[in-house]
Amino acid sequence: MNFKKIAFDVMGSDNGLIPAVDAAIKLLGEQKDLKIIFVGNEEKLKSVLATKKYNPEQIEFFNTTEVINMTDGILEIRRKKDSSMVRAIELLESDKVDAITTAGATAPFIAGCHFILKEIPGIKRPGFMPVIPTVVSGKVTLLLDVGANLECDPEDLQNFAIMASAYSKLINNVDNPKVALLNIGEEKSKGFEMHQNAYKLMDENKNINFIGNIEPRYIASGDVDIVVTDGYTGNIALKAAEGMGKILLKEIKTALTKNIFRKLAALRLRKAFKEVSAKFDYKNHAGAILLGVNKIAFKSHGSSDKVAFYATLKMTYNAIKNDVVNKIKEALEK
Amino acid sequence: MNFKKIAFDVMGSDNGLIPAVDAAIKLLGEQKDLKIIFVGNEEKLKSVLATKKYNPEQIEFFNTTEVINMTDGILEIRRKKDSSMVRAIELLESDKVDAITTAGATAPFIAGCHFILKEIPGIKRPGFMPVIPTVVSGKVTLLLDVGANLECDPEDLQNFAIMASAYSKLINNVDNPKVALLNIGEEKSKGFEMHQNAYKLMDENKNINFIGNIEPRYIASGDVDIVVTDGYTGNIALKAAEGMGKILLKEIKTALTKNIFRKLAALRLRKAFKEVSAKFDYKNHAGAILLGVNKIAFKSHGSSDKVAFYATLKMTYNAIKNDVVNKIKEALEK
Repeated sequence: MNFKKIAFDVMGSDNGLIPAVDAAIKLLGEQKDLKIIFVGNEEKLKSVLATKKYNPEQIEFFNTTEVINMTDGILEIRRKKDSSMVRAIELLESDKVDAITTAGATAPFIAGCHFILKEIPGIKRPGFMPVIPTVVSGKVTLLLDVGANLECDPEDLQNFAIMASAYSKLINNVDNPKVALLNIGEEKSKGFEMHQNAYKLMDENKNINFIGNIEPRYIASGDVDIVVTDGYTGNIALKAAEGMGKILLKEIKTALTKNIFRKLAALRLRKAFKEVSAKFDYKNHAGAILLGVNKIAFKSHGSSDKVAFYATLKMTYNAIKNDVVNKIKEALEK
Repeated sequence: MNFKKIAFDVMGSDNGLIPAVDAAIKLLGEQKDLKIIFVGNEEKLKSVLATKKYNPEQIEFFNTTEVINMTDGILEIRRKKDSSMVRAIELLESDKVDAITTAGATAPFIAGCHFILKEIPGIKRPGFMPVIPTVVSGKVTLLLDVGANLECDPEDLQNFAIMASAYSKLINNVDNPKVALLNIGEEKSKGFEMHQNAYKLMDENKNINFIGNIEPRYIASGDVDIVVTDGYTGNIALKAAEGMGKILLKEIKTALTKNIFRKLAALRLRKAFKEVSAKFDYKNHAGAILLGVNKIAFKSHGSSDKVAFYATLKMTYNAIKNDVVNKIKEALEK
């Protein structure tokens, strides 16, 4: 069988091997043409897998002896040659696999992809692109960059728009994805010179369905399919929104469990609350592609559990199925 | 009686005169040593006031013929000499009043304060400082700048920290206010050179209780009393958090009113939801002082209703009572 292959770096995550393995087995059960190469401590991996049910043809191991830790700087990518992260990226670079998924440290991951995979020709800076749930059911917004780079220039933002538009068409089935520029106001004179120039570039580019500036409060409104920004601003906006979401949900929980009467009434609304939190739960959106590198490279949140890993692996699988990076290269050549 | 006097520019707000007048009358009833000078169309104001009960000694009028609109640029401050905003600021500059409150356009307000009031000696850039509710009951965080300036330098941020610390002590009764720098990560190497230099300056300044960087997700955690940032970043973070808050509350409302069973159960939890939304309702925190100008100048949200105006007027009154700008000047001289 002609398997689609994901190299899965399972060593760097906060929660050990079990959630990663469980998520992989779940997806392998669903996608019979998928093979996952577990990159990491083979002995430990095999002992976790010993009690699980799976099709052995769909699993391989690649034993490694080192681990990139969460606190490691980008230089560890050069030093820890036998780390699971480096080996996984190398497997992808040499076309032994079609994509990688990691939950390891962000900065070394970006550095490793840059050093080993390189960027798509014409791309100076890749961007981290999480998928943001919106108020419109079933509709998502792609937001990039959220932190692969501190600074971006107008051309980077234009490239983000083109790449994300191709991704949105392929993966989210959006016909003519609407692109907006994250800014402090809607008028085109808002923001720094960089924003004004990026606005002009995208507005004049006929390959981008650019609709203007968007304020951070409307990212999740469902009005746009793609929001482009520099990594610093994207990171600030994402973390501010995440923080507010968590605080509000926590406050509501506290208020609803204050006494037995409230607890009983809240019990009857359990399903309603589950609907809301499922929609906005980051676990279902824990994965982000590093858009702009030469191959398909996904990162899952460092604290991923089974649900989060499953979501990221599924995104990775879909990206392979849709040949997303090659399609992006074609879009950039237009 | 030796009244404390607020010049209240009531013309520029979105909701007309009635909420502004109602809020003023409410506060005047509570604070017998307060006088409010309504700056605007005297005839219209008097017709609104005709049906209201108040002590006429506590109200004056200053008739003006022009209005700064929400879409006006900063130059209108120079052109519309008889606008309510300009006249209110002039009343403050000439010490006819102790403070101003406006709900007019932001950019002209900042420009007007800059041209007419000037900054406190040593302050290059003033900062807009809203009061952010936190998860800790009764505890707030002061956040500045949220948009008076796009760019700030490390000295501006240091001055924000000193000024906000004085404010926090006086108004929020915090003994030794904790100051943090908004950044994309906790390590002191994070962010741009500006952040690294601001970190160093504040860390070495013995008049600032600096505790390091804070990520946007923890602004409302209650861990710190003051968060300093440049106006661009502060604006992005504030709007992202506000947007997420509104979206979540709306989603929860939708989920809880989906059918009659949920509606009935939710009715029994009305008080719980009110507690949460009251805590995070921006109306109770609609006012922001422009910290760093020579006098006490407050702006309320353009779409302020009675609750929002009342909250901002009360903040203005408290700032007068505590002689906040003079105390800030003393703190800056240390």
